[in-house]
Amino acid sequence: MPKTAFKADLSRAPEQAKIKTHNRWHPDIPMVEMFRPGDEFRVECFDWTGGQITNNDSANDVRDVDLTRVHYLSGPFGVEGAEPGDILVVDLLDVGALPESPWGFTGIFARENGGGFLVDHFPKARKAIWDFHGIYCTSRHVPNVRWAGIIHPGLIGTLPSRELLERCNKREAELIATDPNRVPPLAVPPYADTALMGQMTDKKAQDAAKEAWRTVPPREHGGNCDIKNLSRGSRVYFPVYVKGAGLSMGDIHWSQGDGEITFCGAIEMAGFLDIGIDLIKDGVNKYGLVNPIFQPSPIEPHFSEYLVFEGISVDEKSGKQFYLDAHVAYRRACLNAIEYLKKFGYSGEQAYVLLGTAPVEGRISGIVDIPNACCTLAIPTEIFDFDIRPNASGPTRSVTAGVDVVATS
Amino acid sequence: MPKTAFKADLSRAPEQAKIKTHNRWHPDIPMVEMFRPGDEFRVECFDWTGGQITNNDSANDVRDVDLTRVHYLSGPFGVEGAEPGDILVVDLLDVGALPESPWGFTGIFARENGGGFLVDHFPKARKAIWDFHGIYCTSRHVPNVRWAGIIHPGLIGTLPSRELLERCNKREAELIATDPNRVPPLAVPPYADTALMGQMTDKKAQDAAKEAWRTVPPREHGGNCDIKNLSRGSRVYFPVYVKGAGLSMGDIHWSQGDGEITFCGAIEMAGFLDIGIDLIKDGVNKYGLVNPIFQPSPIEPHFSEYLVFEGISVDEKSGKQFYLDAHVAYRRACLNAIEYLKKFGYSGEQAYVLLGTAPVEGRISGIVDIPNACCTLAIPTEIFDFDIRPNASGPTRSVTAGVDVVATS
Amino acid sequence: MPKTAFKADLSRAPEQAKIKTHNRWHPDIPMVEMFRPGDEFRVECFDWTGGQITNNDSANDVRDVDLTRVHYLSGPFGVEGAEPGDILVVDLLDVGALPESPWGFTGIFARENGGGFLVDHFPKARKAIWDFHGIYCTSRHVPNVRWAGIIHPGLIGTLPSRELLERCNKREAELIATDPNRVPPLAVPPYADTALMGQMTDKKAQDAAKEAWRTVPPREHGGNCDIKNLSRGSRVYFPVYVKGAGLSMGDIHWSQGDGEITFCGAIEMAGFLDIGIDLIKDGVNKYGLVNPIFQPSPIEPHFSEYLVFEGISVDEKSGKQFYLDAHVAYRRACLNAIEYLKKFGYSGEQAYVLLGTAPVEGRISGIVDIPNACCTLAIPTEIFDFDIRPNASGPTRSVTAGVDVVATS
Amino acid sequence: MPKTAFKADLSRAPEQAKIKTHNRWHPDIPMVEMFRPGDEFRVECFDWTGGQITNNDSANDVRDVDLTRVHYLSGPFGVEGAEPGDILVVDLLDVGALPESPWGFTGIFARENGGGFLVDHFPKARKAIWDFHGIYCTSRHVPNVRWAGIIHPGLIGTLPSRELLERCNKREAELIATDPNRVPPLAVPPYADTALMGQMTDKKAQDAAKEAWRTVPPREHGGNCDIKNLSRGSRVYFPVYVKGAGLSMGDIHWSQGDGEITFCGAIEMAGFLDIGIDLIKDGVNKYGLVNPIFQPSPIEPHFSEYLVFEGISVDEKSGKQFYLDAHVAYRRACLNAIEYLKKFGYSGEQAYVLLGTAPVEGRISGIVDIPNACCTLAIPTEIFDFDIRPNASGPTRSVTAGVDVVATS
Repeated sequence: MPKTAFKADLSRAPEQAKIKTHNRWHPDIPMVEMFRPGDEFRVECFDWTGGQITNNDSANDVRDVDLTRVHYLSGPFGVEGAEPGDILVVDLLDVGALPESPWGFTGIFARENGGGFLVDHFPKARKAIWDFHGIYCTSRHVPNVRWAGIIHPGLIGTLPSRELLERCNKREAELIATDPNRVPPLAVPPYADTALMGQMTDKKAQDAAKEAWRTVPPREHGGNCDIKNLSRGSRVYFPVYVKGAGLSMGDIHWSQGDGEITFCGAIEMAGFLDIGIDLIKDGVNKYGLVNPIFQPSPIEPHFSEYLVFEGISVDEKSGKQFYLDAHVAYRRACLNAIEYLKKFGYSGEQAYVLLGTAPVEGRISGIVDIPNACCTLAIPTEIFDFDIRPNASGPTRSVTAGVDVVATS
Repeated sequence: MPKTAFKADLSRAPEQAKIKTHNRWHPDIPMVEMFRPGDEFRVECFDWTGGQITNNDSANDVRDVDLTRVHYLSGPFGVEGAEPGDILVVDLLDVGALPESPWGFTGIFARENGGGFLVDHFPKARKAIWDFHGIYCTSRHVPNVRWAGIIHPGLIGTLPSRELLERCNKREAELIATDPNRVPPLAVPPYADTALMGQMTDKKAQDAAKEAWRTVPPREHGGNCDIKNLSRGSRVYFPVYVKGAGLSMGDIHWSQGDGEITFCGAIEMAGFLDIGIDLIKDGVNKYGLVNPIFQPSPIEPHFSEYLVFEGISVDEKSGKQFYLDAHVAYRRACLNAIEYLKKFGYSGEQAYVLLGTAPVEGRISGIVDIPNACCTLAIPTEIFDFDIRPNASGPTRSVTAGVDVVATS
Repeated sequence: MPKTAFKADLSRAPEQAKIKTHNRWHPDIPMVEMFRPGDEFRVECFDWTGGQITNNDSANDVRDVDLTRVHYLSGPFGVEGAEPGDILVVDLLDVGALPESPWGFTGIFARENGGGFLVDHFPKARKAIWDFHGIYCTSRHVPNVRWAGIIHPGLIGTLPSRELLERCNKREAELIATDPNRVPPLAVPPYADTALMGQMTDKKAQDAAKEAWRTVPPREHGGNCDIKNLSRGSRVYFPVYVKGAGLSMGDIHWSQGDGEITFCGAIEMAGFLDIGIDLIKDGVNKYGLVNPIFQPSPIEPHFSEYLVFEGISVDEKSGKQFYLDAHVAYRRACLNAIEYLKKFGYSGEQAYVLLGTAPVEGRISGIVDIPNACCTLAIPTEIFDFDIRPNASGPTRSVTAGVDVVATS
Repeated sequence: MPKTAFKADLSRAPEQAKIKTHNRWHPDIPMVEMFRPGDEFRVECFDWTGGQITNNDSANDVRDVDLTRVHYLSGPFGVEGAEPGDILVVDLLDVGALPESPWGFTGIFARENGGGFLVDHFPKARKAIWDFHGIYCTSRHVPNVRWAGIIHPGLIGTLPSRELLERCNKREAELIATDPNRVPPLAVPPYADTALMGQMTDKKAQDAAKEAWRTVPPREHGGNCDIKNLSRGSRVYFPVYVKGAGLSMGDIHWSQGDGEITFCGAIEMAGFLDIGIDLIKDGVNKYGLVNPIFQPSPIEPHFSEYLVFEGISVDEKSGKQFYLDAHVAYRRACLNAIEYLKKFGYSGEQAYVLLGTAPVEGRISGIVDIPNACCTLAIPTEIFDFDIRPNASGPTRSVTAGVDVVATS
C-alpha cells in the first residue's frame, strides 16, 4: 500500500479537517504535495456531500443538501517537471471504500434542488442506502439486485489555466443569461460564500473564490465527468494547464449507470484512490489532446446477457419531434426501461435509482437518421435474482413487496 | 438453411424485381407471405441504395445517389395470429453477405445530399470500399485496420398502424415547418414519386404513397434504428400494430460504429437474414412496450482494450456552451478521436470513416452535470495493426501513405 | 467469397468423388493445387465419417461405422516457396455448415468401436442429432439447451516429413506393443486396405499406404487436435515439414466441449473453411516451434456465468489414488457434472453428450499438489433454458421428459 | 468491512500467535468461532509458508523451506445447523493483500524439496518477488510484464469426517507404497512432529496429529485445489462432513496460472478473505455433490487476445509415446511456451515462473484421440509491454537484460 498523501477523517466535517479540501477549481490553489513521475500514492476522499447524507431511512438530508458546498476534493497534487502542454498520465491503480464506511447512498434530487435527468417524472427527494459485501452491493431499499461495483472517481482533473478558467466562465455565463431564473438552473456561476480553496487562505482565497469554477460540470481538464468506466485499473491522460499539473479528485462512486441519471445518481461514498503518475512531455500537441482520454480497466465486469431498451427523440409528454436530440432519446430509453421494470414490482423511483446505479450501458446508437436520434440503454440481466427477460406468459411480480426508496418525513 | 422467402437478384435494379421491395412504410402494404409462430425463413436484401453505389474508385455515385429511393426493404412478412398489442419476437438467427457480393461501401454524404454527423467538417462526398475475408473486413481506402464485423440489419420493423402513421407524419411535419428550407433538412416528408409500395399496385399504391412514411428515421415500430448490437444472434421484441404484424427489413451493415456518423456510415452491403419468429400475445401491455427492446448476441466480439475519447457539450467552432446536449458532446468526442488518429497518418476523412464503421462504442457517460453532457467514444485498439496507445515518445506515423478514401472526379 | 479449391459433393460417397480426399498422412501425397502467400480460398469438407452417419433416430450407424475409413481430408494444398523449417500461417477466415446440410451428429462409440472418455460408464452406441438455426443449434435428442457454435475444424495440419513419419510410427508401435490386444486399442497402426491417398495412385499409393499415418491422433504437424478454440476467426502457425507445406483439413465441428469426451463427441458436420495463407520463412527456428501455436478468434462467445465442477485423480470405481493424473481428474470432473445434470432430468447419456458438445471449458487447474491433480470443467449456465445453479430448495426436474439420445435397434 | 474473525500478525511466526492456525486436516479440530447462515466475516491468513520466505534477492529461503510446516490455515469456522450431507455455500466476497504486506513471492522448488511440474528441466531453487500496485503486479525479477491479479485462496475446505480421513489416508499410503523412496515423493503421509492442530491441545492434539492429513493435495472436501478461478467474487459449494462444517482457508495467491506449475508457483502472499456463508440442507444428496463446485467471479479479467501453445503426450526427452496422458501433454505445452518466450530474451526460469503466475489458461483440449492427449496453454498477450505475436521478421529481444529470478547464494 503506497503512502497516504491525503487523509479523510470521516468523523468530522471536511471543513474542520487540517489539510483542507477544495470545492472549486482555480489555477492558484496551492499543491498539497509534490510528486515525481513514477511515484505512487494513496488519496482518501470524502463522499461528494462531505457527510451531509447519512445512513438512515429518511430523505430529508437529500432534500436539504447544500449543493454550493459539494465536491470536497482531495488535492491538488503537484508533479515535478509538469508544464502546460504536457500530458499527465494517471493510473487509477485502485479505488475502494474506506474500511470504516462500507456503505453508499443514492439520491433523487427534488426539482428545487437541481432535479435529475427525469425531474419531470420524479420531482421529489428520495434516497436509497447501499451496503457493500466485498466486491458486491445490495440495498435495503432496492431489493432483488446484487452486483459487483465498477468503482470509480466521479470527479478527477487537473488545475485549469487562467485562460481556460476565464473562457469557461464566460461561456457558462452566456448560457445562464439566456434563462437566468430557470429552475433547475442552466448552469451554476462562481459563488464565493461556501468556497473551500484548499491551502489557499485569506484575501487571496476570497478573491480567487469569486472567479473559481464550480465543480458541477466536466470541462477540458476533466473534472466531474462521471464516467463509470474511468474505474479502478484504468489509465487516464489529462492535459496539463499549469506548472506542476495539480491533480485533484473526489466524488467516489461504488457503481454508476451511464448518465448517472438521478444526478446524485451513483452509489456515492467516501473512499480511497491509489494513484500512479507519469508525464508525456509536450503530449497535448503530440496527440492533439483537447479533453482527457483513457484506457479502461481489465477487470470491468463483462456481462454476457443484457436487455436493451431503445428510445427516440420524441418528447414523452407532448409527442413533439426533436431533431437528432440524443438527450431526449436517452430519456425515452430510460423511461421505457422504468415502465418495464415496474411490471415486475419495482416502484418507479426504485427503477429510476436502479438505472442510475447499476452498470447499465447508455449508447448513442444512431445519430444521423433525421429527425430521430436513437439511444439505447442496456441492463445486465444477471444483476437481478429473478429472470427479467420477456416470455410468453408475461412478467411475474418478483420484487419483494413492502420496501421502497425512502421519502422525506 | 431455412427456405428463402425473399430473393434479391443483385444483377438488376430492385425496381425490376418480380417480388417488389418497399421503400416506404404504410399499414396497407400487403404481406409477401404468411408464417406461423415458430417458423424460420431466409430473407435476402439489397444494399440500402439498391445498387446505386459500385465497387470502384470514384465517389461520384455517392454524390449522385437518389435518397428518395433508398431502403429497398424485403417484406413485409406476415405472422398468423398476430394482432395489434402483441409482441413479435424476432430471432436474428444469422445475418451475412451474399456469396456473390463479398464487399461493402461507406459513403460520406455531401452537405447537399443530407450530410453526416460532422458535415461542417467534412462537407464533400467521399467513398471507401471494404472487402470481406471470412469474418473479417479490410479496405483498400482505409489501411492498417482489420476487424470482425458485428453484422446487423440497419433497418427492421413492423408495419405501423394508421394511427401511428398519422401521428408521426404530423409531428415530423411540425418539425419541418420550423425551418422548411434548411440544408440538410430537419426531416423528410412523404414523397410519392419514387415510392415503392411492395405488392401494392395501381391507384391504391399511388394514394398510399402520398402518406407513407419515408424510411429514414427509426420510429416506435423499429425501422431504421441503426443499432450495431441488434446483430446476428440477437432477439428483438417488436410491438405489433397491424393484423399479421408485417415484418420488413433491409439496409444490412457488415459493421458500424455507434451513431453511424457518416450517415452512409456503416459498411453497407447486400446480404441475407435468417429469421425466426414467435409471438407474445398482448405483450405490449404486459411489458409496457413503447419502442422495441432486444437481447444482444453472445458472439459479439468482446474487446479487452479500448482507447476512450471524451467530449463535452461545447461547440467546437464558436466555443458556445450547450445545455446537457449529448449530440454536441458526442460530436466533440468524435472530433477528438479524429484529431488523435490523424497524428498516426490517417486523413481526417479516413478517420471519420473509421469511426462510422469500426465497432466503436458511443456512450452517454454523464447527462446531469449542468451544463455539460459528457459523451465518450471508445475505439478497440486491437483493430489496428500498430499500437495507437499514447506513449512518451509520441505517435509514430504508421499508416500506409498514398491511399485515402476516394473523392468525386 | 473466395474461389472454391475443393468441392465436397455430399450426394455421393467421398470414395466416388473426382478429386479424392485422403484419410492418411504421408509426405508424398500430391498437392491438389498450389497457392501463393497472401492467397485466400474456400475448402469444402465431408463430415469425418464421409456420410456414414445419417439424420435419423437409430444409433445403428454409429455402432457400425468403419473407423479405418474416417477423416476424409480435403487437400493437401501447396504453398509456393514453403520449405521445411518455415512456418505456415493459416487464417481460418470462416468456417461453417454447407447450405444443403444444416445439421450435425454426436455419437457415443461402443467399447468395441473405440469407446470414449467415459467408456466404462457408457459402453454402448448412442446418437444425437443437432439442427442448426443460424448461429445456434438445438437437438431433438437433448432438449432444453441452445447455444451458438464455436465452429472449428477438428483436424487441420501440414504434411509430415519422412523423418517425422517414421519417428511417430515407431513410437506408436512401441506403445501398441505394450498391450497389443487391448480393447479399445492403445493406438492405431498404419492400415493400407481402406487408405485413401488423395491424388496418389496405383503402386505408389499402395506402398505409401502401408506406412502412412492413421489420422486419429494429433501430432507435431497439427492433425486431429480437436481444439474447440481453433475456430472461425483464429490464426494458426504450423511447422512446415515438406516442400510446399501441404495443408489438409476436415472433421468440422459445429461445437465441441474441451476434451471431445464422447470421442465422436463434437457436433460433427460437413462444412466449408475459408482459408488465408502466409509464410514466416525459417519461422520454426526463429520461434522455437515444436507443435502448432495459434491466436483464438475475437468472436468466440464470452459467457459470464459458469458452473464449475472439480475432479481429482482418484479412480471412481476402486477409489485408487493416482499420481498427478490429469486424465483421471478430468474424468472425475466430467462424472461429477453428469451426476449433477441428471438431477434436473437428463439421462446420463444426454449429459455425457452435452459435455462433449457444448462449449464447456476443461482446465488443468492444479498439477503439482501431490498426489492429486485437480481438473475443472466449467459449463456455461446460459445454454440451458432453466436455471441450473444450486439453490436452497434443490433441483427442479426441468428437462422435457420422453426424449433421449437414440440407441441401436 | 465485516468483523475480523481471525487475525494474522505478520510480525511474528504463526507458531507464536494467540489463536493458533492449523496445518493439518482432522475431524476433531475445534471451531474457532461459530457463525450463522447469512453471516459475513473477515479472515486474515499468513502466506502459505508462514513467513519463511522473505522479500530479498536470494533463493536460500526457498531452498531451505520446511514443507512439513506449511499451509498455516485460518479456521476452522463453524456454522450453526450444518450437518453432514449439507452443502456449505461460501461467498468469497473479497480477497486481498494485507496493507502492511503489499508484495508476494514465487519459488521454484529444488528437486530435493519436492520440485515442480518441470523439475527435470528446472531442478534448482529460484525465487521471484512481486510488488503490488493497486490491482496490478510487477516483479523486479521478471520484467516487462504487468497484469491484474485474479486473487484467490489456494486452499479452502471443510473439515473431513473420520470416514473420509481414513479412506484418503489409506489410498495415499497405498500409492506411496508403490515407490516409497521416490524423490520427489509420490505423496506425503501424516507427520506429527510439526503439526499445528489449531485450538486442539495436549495429548489429544498429539494423537490426532499422527493421523491428520497433510494439506498438500486437494481432496473431496476442497483443500489445496489451487484453482485460479475460485477467486474474489466467486461462490463455492462445499460438502459438509462434520457437524458445524468447519471451514478453513489459507495459501492466498495474488495470481496463478492454471496448474501452478512451479509448485510454489503462484504469487504467494499473506492476505485476507471476506466470507459470506449459507447452507443448503441435504444438498449433497439433492445435487449429487462429490467434490466442491463453484460459480466464478464476474470481475475476472477477460482478455481478448491470447497466444496458445499446444502439447501432445509424447515425452520430450525420450520421445516416448504416452497414452492419452494429459499430464505429459500439458508439460509439453508448457515447455513449448517457455522455448517461445526465451526467444524474446527471458531466461528459462523467468518463463517458467511466468507460466506459473500469470493468468494463463491450461486446457484439456482433446482427450480421446488415441494415443495423444492434446493440451493447450493460452497466454494473454496483453500482459507484456511488447508484442509477443509471431511475425515475418521474427522475435525481437525485448526483455530488459541483466535481471533474472534469483538463485541461492
